Order: sequence, then structure tokens, then C-alpha cells
Amino acid sequence: MAWELIAATKRQALKEAIPAEWVTPADILPSEDQLDVTSFSKESGFFTKEELDITSTPALAILSNLGSGLWTAEDVTRAFCKTATAAQQLTNCLSEIFFDKAIARAKELDAYFQQTGKTKGPLHGLPVSIKDNFNIAGHDSTIGFTSLVNKPATHNSVIVDMLLEAGAVLYCKTNVSTAMMISESVNNVFGRTVNPRCRKLTTGGSSGGEAALIAFGGSRIGVGSDIGGSLRIPAACTGLFTIRPSFGRLPNSLARACLEGQESVNGVIGPIAPTLEEIVFWTKTIISQQPWRQDPKCLPIPWRPVEMKQKTSLKIAILWNDGIVTPTPPVSRALRETVEKLKAAGHEILPWNATGHLEMLGLLQRMFLADGGKSVRELLEPTGEPFRPEMKMWDEAAEMSVYDLWQTHRSRNALCKAYLRRWNDSGIDALLCPATPYSGVANGKFAYAGYTCVFNLLDYPAVSFPCGVVSNKDIDTAYDDAHQPLSDWDAQIQRDYSADLVHGMPVNLQLVGRRLEEEAVLAMTDLVLNDLAVAA
Amino acid sequence: MAWELIAATKRQALKEAIPAEWVTPADILPSEDQLDVTSFSKESGFFTKEELDITSTPALAILSNLGSGLWTAEDVTRAFCKTATAAQQLTNCLSEIFFDKAIARAKELDAYFQQTGKTKGPLHGLPVSIKDNFNIAGHDSTIGFTSLVNKPATHNSVIVDMLLEAGAVLYCKTNVSTAMMISESVNNVFGRTVNPRCRKLTTGGSSGGEAALIAFGGSRIGVGSDIGGSLRIPAACTGLFTIRPSFGRLPNSLARACLEGQESVNGVIGPIAPTLEEIVFWTKTIISQQPWRQDPKCLPIPWRPVEMKQKTSLKIAILWNDGIVTPTPPVSRALRETVEKLKAAGHEILPWNATGHLEMLGLLQRMFLADGGKSVRELLEPTGEPFRPEMKMWDEAAEMSVYDLWQTHRSRNALCKAYLRRWNDSGIDALLCPATPYSGVANGKFAYAGYTCVFNLLDYPAVSFPCGVVSNKDIDTAYDDAHQPLSDWDAQIQRDYSADLVHGMPVNLQLVGRRLEEEAVLAMTDLVLNDLAVAA
Repeated sequence: MAWELIAATKRQALKEAIPAEWVTPADILPSEDQLDVTSFSKESGFFTKEELDITSTPALAILSNLGSGLWTAEDVTRAFCKTATAAQQLTNCLSEIFFDKAIARAKELDAYFQQTGKTKGPLHGLPVSIKDNFNIAGHDSTIGFTSLVNKPATHNSVIVDMLLEAGAVLYCKTNVSTAMMISESVNNVFGRTVNPRCRKLTTGGSSGGEAALIAFGGSRIGVGSDIGGSLRIPAACTGLFTIRPSFGRLPNSLARACLEGQESVNGVIGPIAPTLEEIVFWTKTIISQQPWRQDPKCLPIPWRPVEMKQKTSLKIAILWNDGIVTPTPPVSRALRETVEKLKAAGHEILPWNATGHLEMLGLLQRMFLADGGKSVRELLEPTGEPFRPEMKMWDEAAEMSVYDLWQTHRSRNALCKAYLRRWNDSGIDALLCPATPYSGVANGKFAYAGYTCVFNLLDYPAVSFPCGVVSNKDIDTAYDDAHQPLSDWDAQIQRDYSADLVHGMPVNLQLVGRRLEEEAVLAMTDLVLNDLAVAA
Repeated sequence: MAWELIAATKRQALKEAIPAEWVTPADILPSEDQLDVTSFSKESGFFTKEELDITSTPALAILSNLGSGLWTAEDVTRAFCKTATAAQQLTNCLSEIFFDKAIARAKELDAYFQQTGKTKGPLHGLPVSIKDNFNIAGHDSTIGFTSLVNKPATHNSVIVDMLLEAGAVLYCKTNVSTAMMISESVNNVFGRTVNPRCRKLTTGGSSGGEAALIAFGGSRIGVGSDIGGSLRIPAACTGLFTIRPSFGRLPNSLARACLEGQESVNGVIGPIAPTLEEIVFWTKTIISQQPWRQDPKCLPIPWRPVEMKQKTSLKIAILWNDGIVTPTPPVSRALRETVEKLKAAGHEILPWNATGHLEMLGLLQRMFLADGGKSVRELLEPTGEPFRPEMKMWDEAAEMSVYDLWQTHRSRNALCKAYLRRWNDSGIDALLCPATPYSGVANGKFAYAGYTCVFNLLDYPAVSFPCGVVSNKDIDTAYDDAHQPLSDWDAQIQRDYSADLVHGMPVNLQLVGRRLEEEAVLAMTDLVLNDLAVAA
């Protein structure tokens, strides 16, 4: 069967997995030229008040309502399944749908609760969406390859087992980019996921299915992964929160990777949600279950509460520009305004330079391409699927020798040592920088992940968060007159910039902490957000 | 200059670095046929009572005497320098000697103490020997290659800075095997280090210079490294204590490796000493200095005290035989006797099988040879130095493709996951097994590191400790009659076994714990030792 047919068949099966009752009728669906569909649920009349109540309630309050018996897991699950269906119709964000199993599980949880008066665990009854690469026995994890269609997993990823153990309800998997190696969410199986805030704009990638689903309201907490920005970029594209934790805090075992066995830079998993509180809660919940007992790569570091009350003034370095790509006007302005508010709140601000960043980008590229694209090719060949144009680099890559790979490790280690020394010498608590150069960018145009991927190489925890600034076509009209392109990327991004197109899009920034100090960077983000709220 | 001449010149310079006053005159030196030279210091008359007092005092008591002002750092340093000289003359254990600097430093520490009444740090005035691969600015780190002679380091390894920061006195570096990839300590620069307990026997490797020096009495605590057994094998050959910690507990940055950039299995550093107490103290001291602040690969896991008082009965699995190599008779007997005593002390004992061990050995070999020996060849070629016969594998290796290297990672990860599952399912606290098949073996005959290296691949912490059993030619006469060789290694080791030759040699065993639970495995070793002492 030709790959196109495999893909079409899979998409059809996905469509058929949705119960008819939840499919929004064509006459209610917004037309294709309605770009912002985030208020569809509320305004369509297709959702009940209770459904809207449920899907607009933060995860902790949902859990509280489930724990008090106010809501049933089944009602909560049905509300999210129905909303996820609309999200799928409007943004193409899902890759696997198993609402039937979700409802069966929710019923079991409800029965358990009724019989015992107790919840099954800290996530009792909460629907959690997960990215396509996490294995769930019986379901595909295609990561966008037609050769992986109808190859259901025979086991669960560790995180899936842990979520179930904690009482979560799994109901769908979300779309990714091919191989999870493109900063948008597009592949030859499911096609493209678009941004529910503006469907002309990308939802980012590779965890973009999650971002679209959550930004639409079809999930409160999703699980994604990040090896170069795959959590932080989609969060930035949709104005959500996420943390890329350091490697070893959260379990990534038994998930599908594309470059299987590539460990020069390690992929990590993390949550994505509409609030910081949900991110913190989820991360703490998983770590408290001691993932190191199940995942041999996880570190036995318990959740360590950080008290920020004693320390209200932080020393924060600002990376205004990495010298390779200048942030687009809304992002530069967001950074400026944020810095002003942080200064006003009493934080010490100092400039940070991007020493080593260009070298790190070069190393990352060499590491990802080190097998000469063989791992990718191996997944394309069985069905004759072509390389997507975004993956041209893999098609053209030459295999590196192991000796040369070892030399990239030496270079990386030297860069990590130098960065740590610079951090120590500066005495900073955190680093604030753009998450991406964009507040938004048209589908197919996302060009630069350099603001996120350096922290993968360094393995520093980084929170991507909406800073409260929104793109404004009247203010963010153009680049400084003096701006000279710093690189081909920079020139392209400047050419592609359209103040009109991104008008109204929230701007995310990135707060970065010390390696394996996830609790600290989350607590500092909370402090920063509070200070920004006060200043607003 | 030919490599032989470079080596001879280096050895001559090493000899000349020793002040004449400390060189044991030829007429006092034992003859070559005196095999056990460990009592030389005590019996030669060449050492003063104070010198002998100092070098026979455990590190904690030395520090206490320094802290009370009873001893000066200079006197302590002189005693160890003089004893190390004798060790060098009798076992050829040193690679760098800088007694002059050590005494200057000791004087500075004494002056500081006299002026302030305070010590400089927790290791104030303690001479600490270190393995050749750790860089000290101004000194070679040849790791046995003539091409690295007279290429003094321009910076200190992180552990060296930390030792100095803690007040330690560095006075010498110790011999290793070429590339630290042979389980004995022999190379083309310095030749062979022999075992001071029996000079016909190997001192093990690659941290064998440390083991010989400490077993002789020329150091109380040394720092070595271990990527396949390089700490645990020398400790076993000389009846000392060591721990191979999990990767990331102790700082290994800026040290010389041979296979630089090879990270499929990570080398770690650790202490080696005559008592468990010294091992625990040193490890705790270094971790308490927060090595993660200096070394980007270290984990922010503080020293976590383990209370064993509540848990006096452990569940211990025994690996009697890994199915590849049968331990020699003294080791099998040591294991049997130890198990009997542990049972008598109330511990629960269960058998452990070596599932996965053979696969792990195969993977380790492929990982170490993955660059086709290029890194080693690169260090041999500048001086035309030949591959040593022990390194034939590297000479003959073909370079692996990066794709294939990635597949070894996948296999390793699956083995690690399965081992962890088996550990969890069994409910064991620790695993007890041989450290090596030997209680001792003739120089040049060490053939099998399989009992240690699997725990490098798994990254489990492992203590090598003398269990109290001593090889006895009257008991440990031969293998069981029924013994059939399990492998070529097994046949060779059986052929090489000589009850006469190893008579009197202590037997080390290995206690293995969960990954990154160094405190627990040390505490369990302490409990086991106490129970063995009671039973003895």
C-alpha cells in the first residue's frame, strides 16, 4: 500500500474513532477563515454549561471537585472528550483517540470512589492528554511515519503507567512533527496541526498537538517532550506554560524516539498547561511517585520545596539577543517591559551574553545528524514515504564517525563547563530570555529554535511562560531602523515578520535555572509572575 | 626521540624528583625474591617511630591530631613522602612526584593553623595520593603514553581543586595501565606496578599504583577512577576498600581519559583506603562540598545519612557465579563463608542469577572499541610507541558506525530496565558477589573483569571490601572436581590458579546497591562487616 493511502486510511480510522454524538455539525463549525477558534466552545451553543464549567476549571479544582464527589470522573471525561473532538475538527491536533476506553476507566474510578469514599491517587479522574510518542499498549505511536501506522505498542511508557497509577484518565494522543524533529507539528500521516488562537499561525512543535488541544480547552494538562524546544516552542506559540526539566527528573523510558539510542543530547518529558500552578502540581505529583524506581535513567531526587518568601529579590541575567537571531518586535518589547517591571519590583537585572551559543547550535546539529539520517530513512523506506522538505538536513547528512562523535562530546563538555563557570561568576539566580524569536509565525515559517535548544545541550531547566505582553500591531510595527541581519535566519525572520498577522498573540518568555533545580526555577517563575501582575 | 628513550628519561626524572635523604639505601632494601614487602617500613629500621605512628594512623585520627595541634602537617607530609619513596622503590607505584611542593604547602597550612588556630578545611594537612589521570597544573598526566610525557597540564581537575580547597596535601600521582584500559597497572612509560603483598602478583588496575602505595602504607586515602573495575579490582588485589559510586556523585571533570568523549559508559572517580570508615569519610567530605557547583556532570544530591539501626536484617541476593567465569577456590569459599555468617546474623539470603551479564560484557566491549582504536592510536603514533599486547583488541578493532553505536545504547537501556525490574521484583536491598574471580593472580595473568564491569554499565554503586577470609593453600587446593570450563576465560583462570601463589592473600567481595544510593550501600557494607566481625 502506498504511503499516501496508509495515511489516508489512518486519518479515516481516527475520524471514525469519535462517537457521532460529539462531532460538531458542519453548520455550527466556524468557517475556515475564522482564525481564532478558542472561544468556539463557549459561543457555539454546542456545549452545555456543565461541560463548559468543567473544561474551564483548572486541574487542581477539577481534582478537588472529583475528590468531594461534586463531579464524577465520567462527566469530566465526557466533557473533555467532546471538547477534544471540536479541537480536532478545528485544529487537527489528535493522533490517537480512545474515548471509549477513557469512559470505561472513568466509570471504574467512579465506582471505586463510590465504594470506598477514596480516590485512586492524586490524579483521580483527571483526563490527561499525551503526546504521540508515549506508548500505550494497543495504540500506535507513529510519530508521523506511515511505516509505524498499525503497529500498536505492546507496552506502556513508564510515564503512562505512572499516570494510570496516579488515577489519571487517558483519552487521546496528540499530533507531532515527523520524527519530532521539526519545530512545527506536521507530518505525512496526520498532516498539520494549526494554532487555535490563529489558524494561519503554527502551533509550534514537536508537542504542538498538545498545545493546540490545551489552548482550545480540550485538555487541562498534557504531557509532551523536548529535545530542542519541543515543549517550550508550542507553549510559546499558544501562550501556555511548560517546563523543560533537566534529564532524569521525569521518566522518559519506553517512549518512542526517532533517533533511537541517540544520547549525546537527551530528550526529556514535561507538562504543558494553561497555568503555572498546574505545571508545578503535575511535576511534583510525578516526582513524588519516585520515577527512579521504574525508570533506570531517572535520578533519586525527591521533590524539594523551595521557599521564596525569604528571597524576594532575585539576580536575573537578561539575554536580549543571542547574536544569531534578533527577536521579533513583540518579543523584544515584551522583554523590555518585563525587565522594567522586574526592576521596579526590586530585582537585580544584568545583561547576559550568548558566549558559546553558536557553537552549541553547531554541535546539536551534528549530534542529531550523526547517523547520517539512517534512523529516519529506516522509518521512511518501508512505505516509500519521502523526506519532508523540513527534514532535508537528514536526507543530505553524511554519517559521522564514532571518533568524531566523541569529539563533539568533548566540545559540549567544555562549553557546559564554561557556561557553569560564567553562571557561578555572575552570581545570578536565573536567566531570562526569549523562548523563541516569535510571538507567532505563519504555518511553515518557523525557522529558529536557537533560544530553546542551547538549554537542552546545557541540560538546564527552563520554563516557557506567557509574560502578559500581547503583540500589538500599532506598537510592534517593525524592527529598529538600525537592524542589520545577524544571519540568514535573522534576515528570513525579519522578512517574514508581519505585525498584522501576530496581532493579539501572547508573548512567552523563558526563565532558565541551574541544572536539576526544577523546583527553584518554578518558584522563581511564580515570583516573577506575581511581580508582573502587581506591576500590570 | 624514540619512545623507549622518552620513557627512560621520564623514569630517570621521576627518580631524581625524590630527595636523597628519603631514598632507602640499597643495602637495606629487601631483595627481589622477598615477595611481601608490606612490613618493610616497620622492620627496616629506616623509619622513625613517629613516622611509623603517622603512616599507620587512619586518616580521621591523623586529621584529629592535626586539628588538635599534636602533629604538624609538615611532619605528616614528610612521613608519607618518605614511605611513598620506599613504596616506589619496592613496587614502582608512582608516576609523578612533587614532595617539595607538598612540603611547602604543608608549611603554609601549619602557618595558617598557628596564626588562626583554625584548620583550612576538613582535609587540613592530610596527604592524599591521586591517580595519574587527574590533572595537576604543571605536571604530566601521561596515563602511560610516551606521547604525553613532558606535556604538563595547564589546569587542575575539578577533584584536585576540591581536595586543595578542603586542605589536602598532594604529594604524588600514581601509576596506571596504558589508557587505563588494562586490569593491571603496566604501561610503556613507567613499566609495571607490583603488589606489595606479594610482588609476583598483580596489584590490579587501572588504579593499581594507588592500591600498591596504600597497601604499602605510603598513603591513607587515594583517589582513583573506575570505568570497568579500575578501583574495585586493585582494591581486591591488595585487600583494600573502595567504592565505585554512580556517575554524577563525584566530580570527574577535567581529568584525562583515554577514550576522550566516550560516554556510552561513564568513568567515575572514587576513594581507595585501608578502612571503610575512611572511604565513607572521604566520599561524604567531597559531596558536602557540592561538586555540582563546579562540575557540570555532577548531580545536586547532597550526602544523605542512612540510619541502619532500624534495619539490621537485610535481604541480600548472592551471585555465586556469573555463568561465564567461576571464581577461584578462595573466592568461592569466601562467598560461602560470608553467606553462612550473614545467615547466622539474621539476614535473608537468596540466589541471584546473571541474566543479562554476558550481553552487558559484549556491549561494553563494543562501546570501548567503538572508535576502532583511533583515540588510542592517536596517542601512540606521535612517538611510534607500539600497542601493548594487552591492548590487542584496540589495535584490531574496526570503527563502528554512529548508527550502530546508537543501537548499543538501545540494548543497554533495555538491559538496565530489565535489571531494575528484576531488582524491584526480588525486593532485595543489596547484591553480594565476587569483586574478581581472584584473591590474587600472577603479574600479566589478570584475565576477567566481568564481575565489576557489569555494574559500570548498570551504573550501580559497588563497594569492594576485604571480607576477612584469607586464601589458604591447605583449604583452597583446587576447583571442584565437577568443574567444567564455562568459557575460554574460565579455562584459562582455572589453569592459572595456584593455591601456593595466592596463599595468605585476602579476599575481597563486592556489595552492590541501587543506582545513586551510595550512602545506603556504604551503610550496608558497614552492617555486613560488623556482622562478619561478630561471627568471626
